[in-house]
Amino acid sequence: MAGGDVPALLRVLSGERLERPPVWIMRQAGRYLPEYRELRTRAKSFLDFCYSPALATEAVMQPLRRFPLDAAILFSDILVVPDALGRKVWFVEGEGPRLNPLIEEQAWSFDDPQRGLQRLSPVYEAVERIKAAIPRDIALIGFCGGPWTVATYMLQGQGGEKERARRAAYERPGDVEALLAALVEMSAQHLAAQVKAGADCLQIFESWSEGLTPDQFRRLIIEPTKQLLVRLRELGVAVPVIGFPRGAGAQIGAYARETGITALGVDTQTPAAFAKQAAPEGMPLQGNLDPLTLVVGGAALEDETRRVLQDFAGSPHIFNLGHGITPEASPNNVARLIQIVKGAV
Amino acid sequence: MAGGDVPALLRVLSGERLERPPVWIMRQAGRYLPEYRELRTRAKSFLDFCYSPALATEAVMQPLRRFPLDAAILFSDILVVPDALGRKVWFVEGEGPRLNPLIEEQAWSFDDPQRGLQRLSPVYEAVERIKAAIPRDIALIGFCGGPWTVATYMLQGQGGEKERARRAAYERPGDVEALLAALVEMSAQHLAAQVKAGADCLQIFESWSEGLTPDQFRRLIIEPTKQLLVRLRELGVAVPVIGFPRGAGAQIGAYARETGITALGVDTQTPAAFAKQAAPEGMPLQGNLDPLTLVVGGAALEDETRRVLQDFAGSPHIFNLGHGITPEASPNNVARLIQIVKGAV
Repeated sequence: MAGGDVPALLRVLSGERLERPPVWIMRQAGRYLPEYRELRTRAKSFLDFCYSPALATEAVMQPLRRFPLDAAILFSDILVVPDALGRKVWFVEGEGPRLNPLIEEQAWSFDDPQRGLQRLSPVYEAVERIKAAIPRDIALIGFCGGPWTVATYMLQGQGGEKERARRAAYERPGDVEALLAALVEMSAQHLAAQVKAGADCLQIFESWSEGLTPDQFRRLIIEPTKQLLVRLRELGVAVPVIGFPRGAGAQIGAYARETGITALGVDTQTPAAFAKQAAPEGMPLQGNLDPLTLVVGGAALEDETRRVLQDFAGSPHIFNLGHGITPEASPNNVARLIQIVKGAV
Repeated sequence: MAGGDVPALLRVLSGERLERPPVWIMRQAGRYLPEYRELRTRAKSFLDFCYSPALATEAVMQPLRRFPLDAAILFSDILVVPDALGRKVWFVEGEGPRLNPLIEEQAWSFDDPQRGLQRLSPVYEAVERIKAAIPRDIALIGFCGGPWTVATYMLQGQGGEKERARRAAYERPGDVEALLAALVEMSAQHLAAQVKAGADCLQIFESWSEGLTPDQFRRLIIEPTKQLLVRLRELGVAVPVIGFPRGAGAQIGAYARETGITALGVDTQTPAAFAKQAAPEGMPLQGNLDPLTLVVGGAALEDETRRVLQDFAGSPHIFNLGHGITPEASPNNVARLIQIVKGAV
């Protein structure tokens, strides 16, 4: 790859400080775009949509046609991993994902990872198609959910309050450990297959990092994530990995230092100054604009965007939100945001 | 007051390190106690219950008869303050509190604080009765909600996702500032009246501190809390104030240093070592046992209780949970917890 073709996102992930940070947006392909809402009607279920390489590829391309983004991210869902493990997943319109809750079952068993990879082959085909479709200076990000976040859905059968999942961690510690081990192995295989298919780097979405005791944070988040990174490297994957432990609060330092991640995703609530001081010296940081500013727009969007740019200055920085963009966000506000980040206004 | 009568809680709040920390439990009077569930049936609505000095006093006494607790806390609700400001509050069984959402109204107006104090006079009568009923070595805690937490309920009309309240803070900043100012004044008057009626110390429950941007955390939490403390001191209130910014994560240091609180309540997620280092040297710390351990009991309860004792050793420490006790908790587990804290087992 010629030097000029190296995507800015990968340069920052290798530790470079760029004058203007690369920018992408969590859930940049999604419901705030009218063309996505139209596209979505072409598949019966959300999982069918994710497993259609043509539809997933088109969803990824939509925001790239509108905005000068520095990265594309695979269109998929963190719950394809339980699906690969043989746990049925379905989506209730307007409510969210559902599974049969593990906590209501006596013995837990999961399909073999090799069988899971087979089940997920349309995802890797989508990655190949996306990689072929995007310009060389746009980085392609693969992803999976963090083991604890995915385990929470599997344990409870849905999102929301995580108390039943946390209770299982106290009451069936051996079973929960085995569940996390199964998720680590399947997730590592899943990420490795994405990289083999063309992903340039990876993100682990640990969306539900909040509310754990310090001991649980270590056992349920840090340890499994560390094992996931070890396993990934054993599988020969050398690309950078962004870890995003949303809601981890004071624990982001331990997460950044101990899991083996390359870069740290910072949520909306966490001050940049804290992230800089908590993460190892020179670790690239990603974040952390409030997604609500893309709904309200105007001065709030401008002020907050410039504040984020200023607060992360001096670190290798990837501009992003501190949480996923919401369906209520305006595409015009996204365009404006990127203009500001690129220094065009 | 003879030296031996000074409640252990107040000694720790004045900075003393005791070999065995005093202990109380957030929501210690509540639904996990069968006698409370029976008592609750004697009032038609939850607010009627709070406004009955006889019932509120009896609710406070119930856990004191069962457990050797070091503090009593007024039985009331953080939403009596909007009620005092003239905003109707009601409770939907099994769902929670409801108000008419301010965000749906054009112009916001609130009753005069003096009229509010009149409305809340049964609360102060309850404080007087409780003070007369409890032994001299048990501290009586008064409380209110943090201005932003209460504002969130008033803006949205209910709890849950706080995005609509955060959106109002962007879109109607002047109105939200005026709302917070009204809450600061009413809350200060309310706390001062509790102290006049016999409360020995105070706690501010900022239960919804999470998810704000750093700028919002400063404007919506730190500044109003600081003003509340200033106003309290202007009203001649000299008692210690525990601030409990649940979910504030990396921001607890700024909260502890800048608001003027005496002691910091630490939530379940925050490591004691982080709280010690983030708060000013020698600030008393309260917390932070996982409430779920009182549901699951057994080794988890024992291990976690001893871990909390050990982690906070060396600081002036008040043993408590990191969040309120839940209705599913077992009174036997509470008894066991207190035995461990008191060194009886």
